[in-house]
Amino acid sequence: MSKNYDLVILGGGMGGYVSAIRARQLGMTVALVEAEKLGGTCLHKGCIPTKALLKSAEIYQTLKNSSNYGVYADNISFDFSKVQSNKEETVTALYEGVQQLMKKHQVDIYQGYGRLLGPSIFSPQPGTVSVEIKNSENQMLIGESVLLATGAKPKALPNLPFDGKVVLSSDDLLTMEALPKEIVIIGGGVIGCEWASMLLDYGVNVTLVEQANQLLPNFDHSIQQTLKQALVKRGCRIYTGAAMEAFEVTEQQFKTTLITDEETKSLQAEVVLVSIGRQPNTIGIGLENTAIEQDQQGFIQVDENFRTKEKHIYAVGDCIGGLQLAHVAAHEGKYCVETIAGEHPFAESLANVSSCVYSEPEIATVGLTEKEAKDAFAKVKVFSVPFRANGKAKIEGKEDGFIKIVMNEDTDDLLGVHMIGAKVTEMIAEAGLAMLVNASIEEIGATIHPHPSLTEAIEEAALGLKGKIIHG
Amino acid sequence: MSKNYDLVILGGGMGGYVSAIRARQLGMTVALVEAEKLGGTCLHKGCIPTKALLKSAEIYQTLKNSSNYGVYADNISFDFSKVQSNKEETVTALYEGVQQLMKKHQVDIYQGYGRLLGPSIFSPQPGTVSVEIKNSENQMLIGESVLLATGAKPKALPNLPFDGKVVLSSDDLLTMEALPKEIVIIGGGVIGCEWASMLLDYGVNVTLVEQANQLLPNFDHSIQQTLKQALVKRGCRIYTGAAMEAFEVTEQQFKTTLITDEETKSLQAEVVLVSIGRQPNTIGIGLENTAIEQDQQGFIQVDENFRTKEKHIYAVGDCIGGLQLAHVAAHEGKYCVETIAGEHPFAESLANVSSCVYSEPEIATVGLTEKEAKDAFAKVKVFSVPFRANGKAKIEGKEDGFIKIVMNEDTDDLLGVHMIGAKVTEMIAEAGLAMLVNASIEEIGATIHPHPSLTEAIEEAALGLKGKIIHG
Repeated sequence: MSKNYDLVILGGGMGGYVSAIRARQLGMTVALVEAEKLGGTCLHKGCIPTKALLKSAEIYQTLKNSSNYGVYADNISFDFSKVQSNKEETVTALYEGVQQLMKKHQVDIYQGYGRLLGPSIFSPQPGTVSVEIKNSENQMLIGESVLLATGAKPKALPNLPFDGKVVLSSDDLLTMEALPKEIVIIGGGVIGCEWASMLLDYGVNVTLVEQANQLLPNFDHSIQQTLKQALVKRGCRIYTGAAMEAFEVTEQQFKTTLITDEETKSLQAEVVLVSIGRQPNTIGIGLENTAIEQDQQGFIQVDENFRTKEKHIYAVGDCIGGLQLAHVAAHEGKYCVETIAGEHPFAESLANVSSCVYSEPEIATVGLTEKEAKDAFAKVKVFSVPFRANGKAKIEGKEDGFIKIVMNEDTDDLLGVHMIGAKVTEMIAEAGLAMLVNASIEEIGATIHPHPSLTEAIEEAALGLKGKIIHG
Repeated sequence: MSKNYDLVILGGGMGGYVSAIRARQLGMTVALVEAEKLGGTCLHKGCIPTKALLKSAEIYQTLKNSSNYGVYADNISFDFSKVQSNKEETVTALYEGVQQLMKKHQVDIYQGYGRLLGPSIFSPQPGTVSVEIKNSENQMLIGESVLLATGAKPKALPNLPFDGKVVLSSDDLLTMEALPKEIVIIGGGVIGCEWASMLLDYGVNVTLVEQANQLLPNFDHSIQQTLKQALVKRGCRIYTGAAMEAFEVTEQQFKTTLITDEETKSLQAEVVLVSIGRQPNTIGIGLENTAIEQDQQGFIQVDENFRTKEKHIYAVGDCIGGLQLAHVAAHEGKYCVETIAGEHPFAESLANVSSCVYSEPEIATVGLTEKEAKDAFAKVKVFSVPFRANGKAKIEGKEDGFIKIVMNEDTDDLLGVHMIGAKVTEMIAEAGLAMLVNASIEEIGATIHPHPSLTEAIEEAALGLKGKIIHG
């Protein structure tokens, strides 16, 4: 069986299904191939389920601290199985939503594992997608264009393979039935820090180990420091610039020797989360049958329009590396599909991506860090407004954190905005728009932010850069 | 005693003290006259204390609903005296902050009631400010320029004077020691709706009466409807298009006859809040000694630079009417002072003011309503994205509400943004900036909003206007 489409998409995660919808809007016929569930990592193993677990953790903390606000309760507890089932309900509801969207937009879904073929009886050029269909012969899909959006998965340490019991990936952690009493987290990037923060809030004993000298190595240094303080304050043991030797895994325990500049010590815990990065899902999808190139880590190489070395095959999202974020995959997919359709999408979108960490406090950032800016420009000025100077933050009991703006003093250009504190994963949207439209510092400072609001700190930071801050 | 200043400011609320700081930054000598406490209505009787009470109400509701998230507690209760003392602590801390700011910027504070004099031995022109100082002779302040920022206060119904016991203003409600069991709220504007929402969350029996046919008469009609539904769902009785006859007030009760198109009925409650608007604090400040003009309601008349009929006397904030909001007063003050200093401030600021209602759900709006837009332009298009289509809203358990964008289809111009839902008083900042810089609908839709976030609804609404919505 073979069928022709304008666009065949491999992978039904955020990159894939958003591309499918956009392609249908542009009038293409679309086949979407997914071996597991539509929605991908984001919906089933990433953004959504972790945020549902975080919400329960946040509510648990709200209850524990409610007396500060004159609100009282006894016997505060959580039932982790209910936390998990609530998470599952959320995921299921959103999963149904994605399925409905596919129906509404008449995207043909092929449930099965898809593989690129080389030149064959179906097509003289490589890229025909062969889908393994259960109890049926393979379905051949021939696309005028083909889009690879196969995503990525947790990377294991070479000498510490995941076992799903003691050595866990973030996927494993998401499905655990009960919380461990203690955990070692290897890797202090976004995923490691989110889990550390959440597990601390559930009362788990957390040790966080990072090879680099700072948590969140790609973030602004002041964000790194503030997050570290916040985690330490809640009892997290953090080792940065740390190496480990001799992993030992038994039925009930993980053990290693930790080596830092200061000390060499034994480290052990019930379980270990390995969150050292993600590797592309590019094995077994038939890339070897094409001219498509990969980098050393396996990420598919594409040009600025997401085109691979095969001129009709494109790739977006986590499988091409870069910022492995759902909203990036979605926008890359839309950009790519619009380009295929001959439109001229807005290139500035992808140059101004916000990144968020859903820790407590939240982190959100867009543009250059202070250090990146100073490396790139002659005259860089920064201004930070701490939330303790903000009335709404005081009312919310969320005075930790700050908003920092980085500007090019020679041109008055906004270069970056870095936020840590309550609700900043929502507040970054303003900064994202400001970056996209190249708003000036004057304009940000002239925008009347409502009072009282946390966003007044954005206005004040902009005013601060101009010597006009009021509450500082 | 007389003293000369570059600027003499009457009133130490947000309009006054922010102007004082800005004037000092611009090198002026500044005297600030305040009869009561620095910080004014916003800090002591408005924005800040109400939000502190709201925060406790929100936490109380979080506890009551926590089992949805797998978090449990027994004997959930609140102690209103502790709620109040927490509020007082917040106000006190912020009050100290304002006092420190005045010291830091070397603003001379005159504690006492200030009055404008006519031409006198101190100055041939009117506008010398005479300050009544306790146990001392009056202090005369002669300003090169004078700024009136005297604010406003709750307006009473002609035949229902405030008594602080049964007939209450919002000022009275803020200081109550215990909550009433039941309340009638007369006036369904911003203040009435905020109090209704908050008191419902504390378990008070609320009846809301509004003369107009809708709550929040100046807001977009879809916001009006959604708020009404949210209040009714929580047990609020709402009468719009309602008149009242024959007020009767005893020691323990308020009673009236309510007349609507449908019915005439007796209405009674322990207390009544009258929130029908605010009147300017312009009596007794010596306006009669000057050429300054007022409108029928007493609001001081100013030109586009906030100048009164006396060329060296200016007025900003609630005492001139318009949008009586703290952030408006502050920006008017800054604009006015910068103009006095010969600067050329950004006029677009004041043309794009966000308004917020801190109800549950929150409301935030900027620009034209759908109706206003359709009255003003030939081709208007709107698009609403409900929060129930948003993953983060689902996780937060806050699926009520929506974001609506109003555009001019002929020009692609953004005309207005209207939001009701969780955290929208923070999310409106992006819309405010978009209005100020005249961002296009394309640009808003092209901005990559983080996933998952509530702000994705802004992106989707913009995409919706262009036929490019993904999750809708």
